[in-house]
Amino acid sequence: MKRMLLALSLAVLTAAPLAAHAQFAKVEDAVKYRKSAFAVMGAHFGRIGAVVKGERPYDKTAVESDAAVVEFMSRLPWHAFPAGSGTADSKAKPEIWKEQDKFKAGAEKMQGEVGKLSAAAKTGDLAAIKAAFGNTAQSCKACHDNYRNK
Amino acid sequence: MKRMLLALSLAVLTAAPLAAHAQFAKVEDAVKYRKSAFAVMGAHFGRIGAVVKGERPYDKTAVESDAAVVEFMSRLPWHAFPAGSGTADSKAKPEIWKEQDKFKAGAEKMQGEVGKLSAAAKTGDLAAIKAAFGNTAQSCKACHDNYRNK
Repeated sequence: MKRMLLALSLAVLTAAPLAAHAQFAKVEDAVKYRKSAFAVMGAHFGRIGAVVKGERPYDKTAVESDAAVVEFMSRLPWHAFPAGSGTADSKAKPEIWKEQDKFKAGAEKMQGEVGKLSAAAKTGDLAAIKAAFGNTAQSCKACHDNYRNK
Repeated sequence: MKRMLLALSLAVLTAAPLAAHAQFAKVEDAVKYRKSAFAVMGAHFGRIGAVVKGERPYDKTAVESDAAVVEFMSRLPWHAFPAGSGTADSKAKPEIWKEQDKFKAGAEKMQGEVGKLSAAAKTGDLAAIKAAFGNTAQSCKACHDNYRNK
């Protein structure tokens, strides 16, 4: 059952990036989209971070829900980096389009860590959640360091 | 199986609004969050709209994927309307906080229509998708007319 669920949700979620070409009429739309997707992802990731740091009490349902949103959102931004969308309004570095394979690998690394975070959230084991959160945060930071201007 | 899936995803998705209190440190964060969630939802809804209007060829997988994103996103913005977040940077009308029941009913109406759109997308019946798209668009417009400044 669980494996079927995962297969199904992955099928739905990965369909978006596969149908990526020409999804945005203007590069501004792509920039707005990816910023929005990262903003929603970041808000929920931040809530888990507050629990990890002890600033917010641990609530299994809330962390599970936040992790599910982070996991869903983590699949969305990548089709919104069309060539030429490193505009003045964006912090995206030109390296994104020079190192497409490395950029994609970074995105996939993050998605993998997020999947583990989501799995940890379901177990209700706070120590496992903390470890997975740390690994996920590192995978975010790796791409930010390489591909996002301050 | 399908019913279990739906129950599970609804359980995960509705958990977020339930844990809504004090999710945002500042009202600006709430405004940014809800704008971002609506932006992602709108982008994917617009892609289905392009198919409905015949501006884009019908592709079952793409529409199903877009509808799944719309459905997921449709649950998120509502906890991001805390009292006092009708700021200058927001198009939210004060009526939102004067008519909370009506606002909530509008949100739920939209979620219901989006659920039907997602179901229609899975059937692959373009006529059903068009009908569900129209109903969903009306439910969006109803709230925009009542609760969003131009």
